[in-house]
Amino acid sequence: MTTTQSLHNPALANPALAHPALAHPVLDNAGLVAPPHTLHVAEPLALECGRVLPGHTVSFETYGTLAPARDNAILVCHSLTKGAHAAGRHAPGDPRTGWWDAAIGPGRLLDTDRYLVICADTLAAGRSTGPASPDPATGRPYGPRFPVVTVRDMVNAHRQLLARLGIERLHAVIGGCFGGQQAIQWAIQHPDQVGRAVVITTTPATSAHSIAIFTVMRRLIRGDPAWRGGDYYGESFPAAGLGAAIAAAVPLWMSPEAMQARFGRRAADPGAAGPRYTMDAEFEVESFVARLAAQAGHQLDPNGLMYLTRAVEYFDLEGTFGSLARAVAPVCARVLFVSYRRDWRYPAAETERMHQALLAAGGDSRHAVLDSGLGHGAFLFDVPGLAATVADFVG
Amino acid sequence: MTTTQSLHNPALANPALAHPALAHPVLDNAGLVAPPHTLHVAEPLALECGRVLPGHTVSFETYGTLAPARDNAILVCHSLTKGAHAAGRHAPGDPRTGWWDAAIGPGRLLDTDRYLVICADTLAAGRSTGPASPDPATGRPYGPRFPVVTVRDMVNAHRQLLARLGIERLHAVIGGCFGGQQAIQWAIQHPDQVGRAVVITTTPATSAHSIAIFTVMRRLIRGDPAWRGGDYYGESFPAAGLGAAIAAAVPLWMSPEAMQARFGRRAADPGAAGPRYTMDAEFEVESFVARLAAQAGHQLDPNGLMYLTRAVEYFDLEGTFGSLARAVAPVCARVLFVSYRRDWRYPAAETERMHQALLAAGGDSRHAVLDSGLGHGAFLFDVPGLAATVADFVG
Repeated sequence: MTTTQSLHNPALANPALAHPALAHPVLDNAGLVAPPHTLHVAEPLALECGRVLPGHTVSFETYGTLAPARDNAILVCHSLTKGAHAAGRHAPGDPRTGWWDAAIGPGRLLDTDRYLVICADTLAAGRSTGPASPDPATGRPYGPRFPVVTVRDMVNAHRQLLARLGIERLHAVIGGCFGGQQAIQWAIQHPDQVGRAVVITTTPATSAHSIAIFTVMRRLIRGDPAWRGGDYYGESFPAAGLGAAIAAAVPLWMSPEAMQARFGRRAADPGAAGPRYTMDAEFEVESFVARLAAQAGHQLDPNGLMYLTRAVEYFDLEGTFGSLARAVAPVCARVLFVSYRRDWRYPAAETERMHQALLAAGGDSRHAVLDSGLGHGAFLFDVPGLAATVADFVG
Repeated sequence: MTTTQSLHNPALANPALAHPALAHPVLDNAGLVAPPHTLHVAEPLALECGRVLPGHTVSFETYGTLAPARDNAILVCHSLTKGAHAAGRHAPGDPRTGWWDAAIGPGRLLDTDRYLVICADTLAAGRSTGPASPDPATGRPYGPRFPVVTVRDMVNAHRQLLARLGIERLHAVIGGCFGGQQAIQWAIQHPDQVGRAVVITTTPATSAHSIAIFTVMRRLIRGDPAWRGGDYYGESFPAAGLGAAIAAAVPLWMSPEAMQARFGRRAADPGAAGPRYTMDAEFEVESFVARLAAQAGHQLDPNGLMYLTRAVEYFDLEGTFGSLARAVAPVCARVLFVSYRRDWRYPAAETERMHQALLAAGGDSRHAVLDSGLGHGAFLFDVPGLAATVADFVG
């Protein structure tokens, strides 16, 4: 059931300011049906690469209601394989809820009784403008001709969305990994528009190791003949390449401890009395990898994933600003960094450098290092553990 | 230059006991040319899966000279993508030396002035019997019909080699990762034949996480149409699949620290003044991954790699023997376990469990936990760091 209601201030002239997305009260998560919205921004968007998008579409969802003072919006920034669908269901029968459903709802970490929570597909993700969108110059999908976009570009695109919704300042911005890059970029780039930033499992620059992983993923997508040089729209779908890319990344976001706890050495066939000595699936974890690979094709555009990984790779605060001190100098937001002690890919010590730079600049910063065997993906799976640290900060 | 000489005891009747491989004095590594040898074992080999190999061939190399007492042989067990070619060159002009050249030679960790060092391809590896070998029943390559082999089978095959060379007892057996599994398996399975075992970065059982990685690699090989269900010999070579599998594994054996030190965020084009904002190679580490993928096809048989990963997966001392205590009870060898503090895939705490089980059984065991930013592959790359701990133990 989709719930919409008119704005509290009907006198607002701009129709976007009365967008139905701004009032979406949530009674309980079981019944939360969040419709996706799209908003077209006709204004050109100048990109970091030097090219200009003549206009762009942002796909987004909201949960909760904008307060009359328009000061209670929280922007959730999604991570690499997630999108705008952060909570609830798209339709009542939908078996899958949004990716952060455990964190968003009445009384939850991001309390929809108090806040309007917004989550939007970034450029190149989901149904926001990306390589699958028609190039206005030709009418055909951009494909591999879509410009290389960066986290800065993505933040600017979402800022245009917020402006059209009449939200001048965010109560908070929050995200993990790629989402954390967006969150700190918001605080750096638009300091007067961010009250609080929660930056989870994010380091000052993307490491060679992460670039290697993304390189592998892009190679696997490109290696699928159905990819057709990136011009597969309406022709084919490189499902095998995408599935391979998703599968290849599994051991890199799911920690050894989490895999051991979930699968151990259990047999793929629960009735097996002992080893079958086969090259077919012998262990349950093999079936898990196969399932993730098979599911991948339904959710992601392979070109989009390639562009997103590229954006993550370009993230480098020291490289871009000359030093961390210069990068964080403009920040006025209260910042909470969250890292995980056993996240070997995004080490807490790297996060700590951002925190120290903010403190040295006189900023209001804290850094919580949490324990979780879940590794890098802990913020997605262990929401109670995260909420214990983050809830008070968000307010 | 290949150096051979007659055996010290020419009275030995069995011609294999006078195999030229038993006397291969090494003057210096720069001039070390080690020819590969092959030895066919006609005796049947009963495998753990229940099938029997009617005979098998072992490909091996030696460095140094067997002492008259035949008591100075050290068996080096190779890891997953390595093989019998452990030191020196196959031909004088060969640009590549063996994979552990830094550890094997006169005055080195494994001192060829004192020891006869032997390294042999395991079953399914290199030119030892494996899926590429002709099935005696049909004359055609086994391909996917090759039996699933285990570490126990591989140790038994190498034991048959040693018997034919007249080596009844090893001064030492040494290996890392898959090679470490072989080393401890030797000490468990043939306790009276092993004087010392050096077991590096090895855990009591292969983890769900490692199985996931190997699953990904096998999927990538299978996904190459040139794989042809495993029957590609004489028809095609699934180079793309093998390259993808090798590339996918890179971020899993090369630690984040090692990648950062080696590549950082340096540009692929050393002349680049700044980001090029391209989907082509922007970072040096991307070129590195591409190079490894391209090189893979020259060294490994894709089916063989699949079988080797499977063998590693079946390694489970507790599952096989009921408990670690029962597994290590027969061991008489002096054992040195080596692990690396920052090897997140083969944690020192898991290695420690084997060490404690051996101590509890009254065994002669020690466990050295070394520091290295190189992670799991440290034993391959940081030989001086390893030698400082291992040299005295080897003697």
